Amino acid sequence: MPLDLAAGSAALTRALVDVESVSGGEAPLADAIEAALEGIPHLEVVRDGDAVVARTALGRASRVVIAGHIDTVPVNGNLPGRLDGDVLWGRGTVDMKGGCAVMLALAAELADPAVDVTWVWYDQEEVDSDRNGLGRLVRTRPELLAADFAVLCEPTSAEVEGGCNGTLRVDVTTRGRRAHSARAWMGENAIHAAAPILDRLAAYAPAEVEVDGLVYREGLNAVLISGGVATNVIPDECRVHVNYRFAPSRTGTEALAHVEEVFAGFEVSVADLAEGARPGLDSPLAADFLAAVGGEARPKYGWTDVARFTALGIPAVNYGPGDPSLAHADDEHVSLAEVERCERGLRAWLTRR
Amino acid sequence: MPLDLAAGSAALTRALVDVESVSGGEAPLADAIEAALEGIPHLEVVRDGDAVVARTALGRASRVVIAGHIDTVPVNGNLPGRLDGDVLWGRGTVDMKGGCAVMLALAAELADPAVDVTWVWYDQEEVDSDRNGLGRLVRTRPELLAADFAVLCEPTSAEVEGGCNGTLRVDVTTRGRRAHSARAWMGENAIHAAAPILDRLAAYAPAEVEVDGLVYREGLNAVLISGGVATNVIPDECRVHVNYRFAPSRTGTEALAHVEEVFAGFEVSVADLAEGARPGLDSPLAADFLAAVGGEARPKYGWTDVARFTALGIPAVNYGPGDPSLAHADDEHVSLAEVERCERGLRAWLTRR
Repeated sequence: MPLDLAAGSAALTRALVDVESVSGGEAPLADAIEAALEGIPHLEVVRDGDAVVARTALGRASRVVIAGHIDTVPVNGNLPGRLDGDVLWGRGTVDMKGGCAVMLALAAELADPAVDVTWVWYDQEEVDSDRNGLGRLVRTRPELLAADFAVLCEPTSAEVEGGCNGTLRVDVTTRGRRAHSARAWMGENAIHAAAPILDRLAAYAPAEVEVDGLVYREGLNAVLISGGVATNVIPDECRVHVNYRFAPSRTGTEALAHVEEVFAGFEVSVADLAEGARPGLDSPLAADFLAAVGGEARPKYGWTDVARFTALGIPAVNYGPGDPSLAHADDEHVSLAEVERCERGLRAWLTRR
Repeated sequence: MPLDLAAGSAALTRALVDVESVSGGEAPLADAIEAALEGIPHLEVVRDGDAVVARTALGRASRVVIAGHIDTVPVNGNLPGRLDGDVLWGRGTVDMKGGCAVMLALAAELADPAVDVTWVWYDQEEVDSDRNGLGRLVRTRPELLAADFAVLCEPTSAEVEGGCNGTLRVDVTTRGRRAHSARAWMGENAIHAAAPILDRLAAYAPAEVEVDGLVYREGLNAVLISGGVATNVIPDECRVHVNYRFAPSRTGTEALAHVEEVFAGFEVSVADLAEGARPGLDSPLAADFLAAVGGEARPKYGWTDVARFTALGIPAVNYGPGDPSLAHADDEHVSLAEVERCERGLRAWLTRR
């Protein structure tokens, strides 16, 4: 069934939710979005894999990117969506088909926005970073993303969330020597050797760091631990997988140096690193945006693709319908009134002259 | 090829090693042993599963059991056996086909021993305790095992090793609350909560306990650790799997009480418990045995099936060819001179009048 872009963001949210689009399986939804946008005269539409980009070309002084991913985490008996009063339940209602619906409604409606707009619906955000559709566009079609400001419609309960913390994952490893556990004195126990690692984690006091007026809360946590080979063998290795969420005042290199200092004397190896993003609220477009959508800006704790825009030198914020703490939950649900509030907020900004 | 029991324990060791008999696949070797013993007039032969029992019935004042398991841990490119001078390399050379060969040679040879002898070759010692062939005989054919003293021909480098430590395995578990690792303050980290468990293990000073004249070394070790659900989730559970090897002066109940005391304040659940065995060197048959085979008795650290005899009220010792620290190693190897030394030692004892 074709998408009716004139139906408004609430109806569009329902329609998008009911087209299952678990990461890697976005093609039917990307097809529907592309088909719905194709005939609109004020938009130039580009398809790249399962990403769809639609741009105005009105020669405005500024250009903004407004982006959202169309994939979801796996469905778990929570599709099709179920409407209960104002609340739509189901996979993707929060993360982030409400935001994608707002974008679709406004892309179709706003033939004459105050700034040029590049709308981006992209694939594979919920999986390994190297499959991310926005990352692919950054690498292969950077000209499509050129802009002065970016809004990512990730769920923020319709508040403006600036920037994001960076995230670093490392393995902190101890080594020992195997022996039969009946003759433990012939070995060296690598799990026992990990005691100071856990002690330091338990004692660590995470910082709160102010960046461009927003206070970012950090966190340093063991997320996985593993060690041992068999129930009767002294273990020769123990691995503590640590996740450091760091304020965007630090670079990734600085974050790693900090973690290496915390675990001084231990073997530390990097598993994954994503830079944070400063909130970028000092740009005039950001000030306009805040004034138009209203409310107070807050820091974003989770890493989001705003960091990809920051890396391109484009200030970026998160703004979208849905409670972020419900993202990926089997009972995710969104208020359609909140979806419409975001629609109004973005419309007010994009039509402000 | 039938086993030639008159060939001596060295040749028999080679023959037994070359019949692969990983736990659960002992039937061909049990068949060969049963066939070789069947025609011997002074032995009554009983087959039970893949265990073979052969008994003299000479009406002697005492009866001894001499036992060995015929299974091995999995082969890893180390069969068939390879002879290099006096040294036979290959799976099972140490644990424990040398001992089984000594038993076979003497079972055939000794038509008129000084005591009645019950020879037991049994299956599935290297796997879960409830599959153990000797345990099965204890449960279903206890009359076959009645005796005044027992020798288990496990590898001891041809020294007498008395009794064995007990072994207890417990899970020490911490619980927390899941949260996204970007908002760690909304959760409770179960891995961090395990820090005191590792601290106590690292600080623990294992005891040395004298029992019946032998000094047993204890050990308390984490052998496995696991925790965490994903790289971006605060873990809600961490499990430390701890192995306590305890001197045979303690019962299993006392051992558990000790471990619960060490981990006071934590959730402790029992995964496995096997009682130790006192050395039993105060019995006259043990004194005779020591005098006949020579050397000093030592404590056995690893748990062995001697504990099953102890549980039946039968004093038992370990005595067999092979360096126990090579058991299960891919490069296990035995000196055939040591095999023959054990053969002479047991012969001296069994023919001593």
